[in-house]
Amino acid sequence: MTEEKKKNRNKLKIIPLGGIGEIGKNITVYEFGDDIILVDCGLMFPTDDMLGIDYVIPDIAYLKKNREKVKGIFITHGHEDHIGGLPFILEDINVPVYGTALSIALIELKTQEHGIKNPLLNVVKEGTVIKAGCFTVEFIRVSHSIDDAVAFAVKTPVGTVVQTGDFKIDLTPVGGKVIDMSRFAELGKRGVLALLSDSTNADRPGFNVSESNISDTFIQYFKQAEGRIIVATFASNVHRLQQVIDAARIYNKKVCLLGKSMLRIVKLSRELNLLNVRDDMLVDINDINRFKDNEIVILSTGSQGETMSGLVRMATGQHSKVTLKANDLVILSATPIPGNEKYVYDVINKIYRIGASVINDSTDRVHVSGHACEEELKIMLSLVRPRFFIPVHGEYRHLYKHAALAERMGVRKSNIFVAENGAVIELSRRSGKMKDSVQAGSVFVNGLRVGDVGETVLRERKQLGNEGVFVVNAVLSFNKRHALTADTEVVSRGFVYMRESVELIEESKKVVSDIVRKCYNTNKRNIDIPAMVNAIKKGLGRFLYDKTMKNPVIIPVITVK
Amino acid sequence: MTEEKKKNRNKLKIIPLGGIGEIGKNITVYEFGDDIILVDCGLMFPTDDMLGIDYVIPDIAYLKKNREKVKGIFITHGHEDHIGGLPFILEDINVPVYGTALSIALIELKTQEHGIKNPLLNVVKEGTVIKAGCFTVEFIRVSHSIDDAVAFAVKTPVGTVVQTGDFKIDLTPVGGKVIDMSRFAELGKRGVLALLSDSTNADRPGFNVSESNISDTFIQYFKQAEGRIIVATFASNVHRLQQVIDAARIYNKKVCLLGKSMLRIVKLSRELNLLNVRDDMLVDINDINRFKDNEIVILSTGSQGETMSGLVRMATGQHSKVTLKANDLVILSATPIPGNEKYVYDVINKIYRIGASVINDSTDRVHVSGHACEEELKIMLSLVRPRFFIPVHGEYRHLYKHAALAERMGVRKSNIFVAENGAVIELSRRSGKMKDSVQAGSVFVNGLRVGDVGETVLRERKQLGNEGVFVVNAVLSFNKRHALTADTEVVSRGFVYMRESVELIEESKKVVSDIVRKCYNTNKRNIDIPAMVNAIKKGLGRFLYDKTMKNPVIIPVITVK
Repeated sequence: MTEEKKKNRNKLKIIPLGGIGEIGKNITVYEFGDDIILVDCGLMFPTDDMLGIDYVIPDIAYLKKNREKVKGIFITHGHEDHIGGLPFILEDINVPVYGTALSIALIELKTQEHGIKNPLLNVVKEGTVIKAGCFTVEFIRVSHSIDDAVAFAVKTPVGTVVQTGDFKIDLTPVGGKVIDMSRFAELGKRGVLALLSDSTNADRPGFNVSESNISDTFIQYFKQAEGRIIVATFASNVHRLQQVIDAARIYNKKVCLLGKSMLRIVKLSRELNLLNVRDDMLVDINDINRFKDNEIVILSTGSQGETMSGLVRMATGQHSKVTLKANDLVILSATPIPGNEKYVYDVINKIYRIGASVINDSTDRVHVSGHACEEELKIMLSLVRPRFFIPVHGEYRHLYKHAALAERMGVRKSNIFVAENGAVIELSRRSGKMKDSVQAGSVFVNGLRVGDVGETVLRERKQLGNEGVFVVNAVLSFNKRHALTADTEVVSRGFVYMRESVELIEESKKVVSDIVRKCYNTNKRNIDIPAMVNAIKKGLGRFLYDKTMKNPVIIPVITVK
Repeated sequence: MTEEKKKNRNKLKIIPLGGIGEIGKNITVYEFGDDIILVDCGLMFPTDDMLGIDYVIPDIAYLKKNREKVKGIFITHGHEDHIGGLPFILEDINVPVYGTALSIALIELKTQEHGIKNPLLNVVKEGTVIKAGCFTVEFIRVSHSIDDAVAFAVKTPVGTVVQTGDFKIDLTPVGGKVIDMSRFAELGKRGVLALLSDSTNADRPGFNVSESNISDTFIQYFKQAEGRIIVATFASNVHRLQQVIDAARIYNKKVCLLGKSMLRIVKLSRELNLLNVRDDMLVDINDINRFKDNEIVILSTGSQGETMSGLVRMATGQHSKVTLKANDLVILSATPIPGNEKYVYDVINKIYRIGASVINDSTDRVHVSGHACEEELKIMLSLVRPRFFIPVHGEYRHLYKHAALAERMGVRKSNIFVAENGAVIELSRRSGKMKDSVQAGSVFVNGLRVGDVGETVLRERKQLGNEGVFVVNAVLSFNKRHALTADTEVVSRGFVYMRESVELIEESKKVVSDIVRKCYNTNKRNIDIPAMVNAIKKGLGRFLYDKTMKNPVIIPVITVK
């Protein structure tokens, strides 16, 4: 072994394979010698420009290359951006997964759906320590917008690394499980090598309001409401559901659950004793008409304006069981995730047109964020007092703000790593540096196919979507005088109305025939189909652009009769 | 003439043909007897789901049917959502256009671009009254984010209607032209039949900060900046430009203009004496390197993250003259228009990655809105004291909030009309009602073609963009035993990688051959091409969906050899 290699063997590598420069598909590699553990493995929802993509998972080529090293996967909490990519890894690298009860229950649903045989799922209580290779991982309770969320203290041969996972500091949480601030303080006192901390709200000044403050708002609205109340929120925010249920109980209202994920999470949470609701308070969607309007609360999905969600179907009259009406009160207990604003406003506009009332976050106090704001982030930094700092879980604007916060809190600038996905951060006890990258990136999941849609296909989709397609069928034959003739038909989609563009179509056919004949004649009277195809793409493309300023995808089909 | 018709002749019709339930393409018809005037004629920028559309203009079928009635078009201000549709009307109905100096100058650029001969453009000073048919229209100064904005008091045979246009109340505006509150009060005292008022910010409590407050923020940042300063804002916000220029002057910095519209508007505004800047303060983009970094301010377009704008090209290294660098300070002096958030955050993330600093509205005081907030809207209502109220210029969530405000301010609920585009609001001196609609809606402008892209083509584009296209070329011939054989080729785009899907492609060909043969045999051995096309669409569609869960657009091409 060379001196260099020996030296490297004593270094911890932290490699974020996702979650840097983006909100989504969080996955972090810890590597030391022959051992690798992972923290989280999430998916990302596609942005509008990823046409037709269902979701995006991390590229795990690096793990496949080092599969024998991987000793375990540790999950901070059960949100999709932390567990959604897990089934795709487990299909390939079936190692033990460790998480708290709710996380594991949610993961189990996924492994079942994906038909993964014998997943090695382990429920871990907070405060517990798990050994995996040369690492030991301690589960530390934090506050977040899903129950049972934890941070990790990863003990490595060169020191302890704290990874917060998604967190905020809520000292009066619903359910009473308070973030374990003393444990972070204790770790900080003993010395923490590095901190990886949630940057989502690094650009928000101040401190989050406590989740339990929302109760008062709900109680107030529930008291006033004359008709039905519809609360739309994330199903996974069990504490929010609890507050809705509690407010309903006060006013003797029944609660009806709407949406597949709402029903699923409530069932799970009740089994795990995370949600407290009596059977007789719940009413089936088929029975709500047996009650007066002011006796009904509907807890629904759709707070992000998702097309197929309960709320949107109610608002558009496409729900088979419930349609919104004028005296309904709709409470959107969530903030639009960036990119979803227009969908959320769309549904709000629709609800207003029905005549119903809308309460939403932007004007009223019906939501708090699950992520630490500036002052909370500073508290975490001051408790943990890390030598190295790696802001994670955020777009660059968040990471840089978080880095600036850490610098103001006393972390040396050269010890702060604003990374990118795939970057290798190499730490020893005293020194650290960011080195070359390993393969990392996005794998698109598209229908049933994983990974066979890439940038090329997306570019084609974009052109198809914006410009349309123009298929040219040229049937070549020879007339009696042995001259080439081309019988041409065209079909277009998404371009212009065919029926109203007769002239354009006829001219296009003529353009194609001319091109084909010219191609034949200049090519020593040979039929060179690839050359003809290229000539048609080019010549017809130019013609159509001149006429319409559009660049449809041109697909020539040539048949020799 | 029937009694009913006679009665109707004494009624004023107000018909919003655009701008209701949307931000964009504002256009309002005032009709009395044989006279029609229009207030504004704007365009709307397409939403993300309008694939390939450049912009959207109002459907003016109603005006074409009543062209001889149209006596004039009155323009409140020069923003695109108020003047952008004008050339398309003027091409068809060339009537006099009335507006203030800046509005008319901006319209003139458009009529020149569209090659409209002899447009009848009239510059009107605020305070002036113009007669058009039975209407007289008074121009009243308001505050807005573009200079030279006015409201209208339209005197009609049944009373005065006030239409605010876009406005806010700024009592210390840059440039010193204060909104004419006394005139609104005077009109209110004499009696106003109806008020049409800007609803954009009806859901924002409070009162806008004055535009002139921004000066202090600029001065503070300009003082601290160690490198170049780049300010991105709307070119049309001339008061904002003035404040940037004034702050630059204080610190002896040169101002460089970037972006076509920035150069155009500065030129126009200087000609109209709306912008005060000495020649020697302006520096050409080619000369900025002759100055030290801290002597340069770049005033750029791109505050909405527009792909081809100055700021985005600077941030992505695609600008031929300027590239952002680490000690630059970028000030985004604008708020993302809903729907643009992700583009704006994209460019902010890119600027951070370069290492430059970013100041933007969400965290700092570098922008104020151009539209009245709740308290300002209440002042307008209390001054004008209309009998009827029509909230305009907003999505439904804004219109309903504005309607609720008006009700709280004492307008009778039955006298408030939350309309829709095309609704006919019929007013007499004492009574009013909303009647059936006239044709109204969206016309898509797509490349050079106006109106020949509709919902069908957009639906096709959506499917093409999300699912891709699959072209099947089946060449039919008969073998020696007179059995039909189909030689099949497929081409796909935007579906899956062809090269990596050999098996799928081969299976598809077989599916098509089988379908064609079956079709031939069950069809009494006739080649029925339309039947074959349908059978391929259906059968291959099902096959591909089963294999991939995708629904590409299938285009069968059948040739008989």
